Amino acid sequence: MNRYTFDEIRVGQKESFEAKITEEMLETFGIITGDINPLHTDEGYAREHGYRSRVAYGMLTAAFMSTLAGVYIPGERSLIKETHVKFAKPVFPGDMITVQGEVTEKNDTFKMIVLKVTIKNGNDEKVLRGSMDIMVRE
Amino acid sequence: MNRYTFDEIRVGQKESFEAKITEEMLETFGIITGDINPLHTDEGYAREHGYRSRVAYGMLTAAFMSTLAGVYIPGERSLIKETHVKFAKPVFPGDMITVQGEVTEKNDTFKMIVLKVTIKNGNDEKVLRGSMDIMVRE
Repeated sequence: MNRYTFDEIRVGQKESFEAKITEEMLETFGIITGDINPLHTDEGYAREHGYRSRVAYGMLTAAFMSTLAGVYIPGERSLIKETHVKFAKPVFPGDMITVQGEVTEKNDTFKMIVLKVTIKNGNDEKVLRGSMDIMVRE
Repeated sequence: MNRYTFDEIRVGQKESFEAKITEEMLETFGIITGDINPLHTDEGYAREHGYRSRVAYGMLTAAFMSTLAGVYIPGERSLIKETHVKFAKPVFPGDMITVQGEVTEKNDTFKMIVLKVTIKNGNDEKVLRGSMDIMVRE
């Protein structure tokens, strides 16, 4: 886990990590949230509606933004204030995703950073684009 | 699960549900995402930093927006295109949250609705404010 202070972070800094989206994650996410939508739970339904398999919950893919902030940048001192997420393409179980954050702004008054977030699948396609406003604790 | 079509949805329509945030959810969310930030995993650390217990992951609270769209409004025909989330107050294990969505816009051209999202804790305090742009599938 990184422990960057506000002063140590610079605009342009990037951090990234990979994660594999698994069937089990979909099941667990469904149990936690109660989201029983068949696009995520029913293989046949998903195929009938034009997908190659059931689709990962968008908010499951977005959940990895928690790790990006809380472990990578800034890491320990992270307090997420705000997030903005656009879902660009579906993610499927089995997909390896790469989660990347780049610091685009630093606000000295509020000790906040803005992180531009990009999540790509194994074919280098953007599946999620977003941003996070994060306070860096003292 | 609701199955509203685009035409059936009206501006001003509201849906809500409750969920209890549990210790187990925090642990599972941490395992799925790999977010090992001590604010969420270490009771002593959280207390030293001014919280009454470890804090729920913000993105865990936000995960219930998946259910709001995919089960409640519009339900089955939901395709989330975009989300915007502001974290207003910390959520703790044991908190009962109420997740509410209200339709504020309908876009006939794109068959999209905009949902204003409010999540409150058991003391009727807003812990999350946000919005979702959702396509309602045919």
